[in-house]
Amino acid sequence: MRIGELSRDSGVTIPTIKYYLREGLLPPGAPAGRNQASYDQSHLERLRLIRALRDVGGLSVTAAKEVLDALDEPELSAHELMGRAHQAVLRDRGSDALGPEDHEWTRARADAAAEIAQLGWRVDPDAPALDQLADVILTLRRVNRPDLLNLLPQYAAATLGLANQEVRLAAADREPAAVMTTVVTGTILGEALLATVRLLAQEHVSATLAEERGEGCEGDGASGSDAASGSDGETP
Amino acid sequence: MRIGELSRDSGVTIPTIKYYLREGLLPPGAPAGRNQASYDQSHLERLRLIRALRDVGGLSVTAAKEVLDALDEPELSAHELMGRAHQAVLRDRGSDALGPEDHEWTRARADAAAEIAQLGWRVDPDAPALDQLADVILTLRRVNRPDLLNLLPQYAAATLGLANQEVRLAAADREPAAVMTTVVTGTILGEALLATVRLLAQEHVSATLAEERGEGCEGDGASGSDAASGSDGETP
Repeated sequence: MRIGELSRDSGVTIPTIKYYLREGLLPPGAPAGRNQASYDQSHLERLRLIRALRDVGGLSVTAAKEVLDALDEPELSAHELMGRAHQAVLRDRGSDALGPEDHEWTRARADAAAEIAQLGWRVDPDAPALDQLADVILTLRRVNRPDLLNLLPQYAAATLGLANQEVRLAAADREPAAVMTTVVTGTILGEALLATVRLLAQEHVSATLAEERGEGCEGDGASGSDAASGSDGETP
Repeated sequence: MRIGELSRDSGVTIPTIKYYLREGLLPPGAPAGRNQASYDQSHLERLRLIRALRDVGGLSVTAAKEVLDALDEPELSAHELMGRAHQAVLRDRGSDALGPEDHEWTRARADAAAEIAQLGWRVDPDAPALDQLADVILTLRRVNRPDLLNLLPQYAAATLGLANQEVRLAAADREPAAVMTTVVTGTILGEALLATVRLLAQEHVSATLAEERGEGCEGDGASGSDAASGSDGETP
């Protein structure tokens, strides 16, 4: 198919498709006459995956490219690919305001490792997720809410149960390519699914408690269909 | 204290502090001579909360301002404030590629509502989280991984258990201001904590399975300390 048809079928604009081609997120089409290229089903599927990683996974273009590059390395094991997906997700989250040069952070990093060790989890000591956990621990301390960390064991128990399902879902796939997309979607889209379901669970519990407390609760709380949208500034 | 001291104590640069003052995320200091203002502990605490929402919560400046504005509305109930926090989080996630004009999305939105109704959860029919759930459902269908939705009941059970702890943690606070920051941190930082612990749980399960399968697993998988950083492009 031509780029116009690819754009129609994927819902991605032609300038964006050309941008993905330039950045190497999307492999080039087959030459079809001067200034023309022909694309196939694989391009359409790749475009849908890119949009999934960007729109729902919230990945930056750089992070999305990392994941796609890993997908294209046939020698990677499912475990290694998951590691790459984790790296990509965490890359976007790395905070410059926090970091190893800060001795408070170093303490939080040690506490993060200790918390996970206490769970008996098999995690690489250099896992970037431990750095992220240190960021969260340090941040909760800085906003004087270290008590939220008391929920860590419950979070751990809940996510361990889910991880068993998620990882085995991938392992269940026969065909290697299917394993890979399952790992990527399970890691990145699964996080979006979990985060969204969590908000709904919170609304349910909060609405129930609000009624118990006799608070007015005509859905003006956790509902928000009336919220005005705003444009975003950026930090200089 | 002067702005220089506020910058030192908070770790936020002076230009960024001035930007937050301009954008109204940080209330002005007390006048102290020409072109001078004096700041106090409340400014320091607000700055730390802003950084927490931005760095770890991943909120845009617009979304962070929404949350902070809600924090400053004393008449809001905890339930309403949580709703505002949810709106802010979801605002950043709204995808333009997906949306009500798309009839596939409309179907996904109906399925999302049906899934939650089946759980018996008390959720406002207009809750933005249902729109987000529709985005995730539609996206999983587009990348041909609707099977991930089979995990929805497990995700729901896990998050309901956590939400009971999270929401009651806030309800346990006596002082209103404490309730509010607990709601905000519990909603937004709790999501970061959960997402991070989930990655660690996945690494643990994946490493264990990889060993069972006899795959090499010297931490080159889910570890990623060796990953090179890359700069990010943006979609035109």
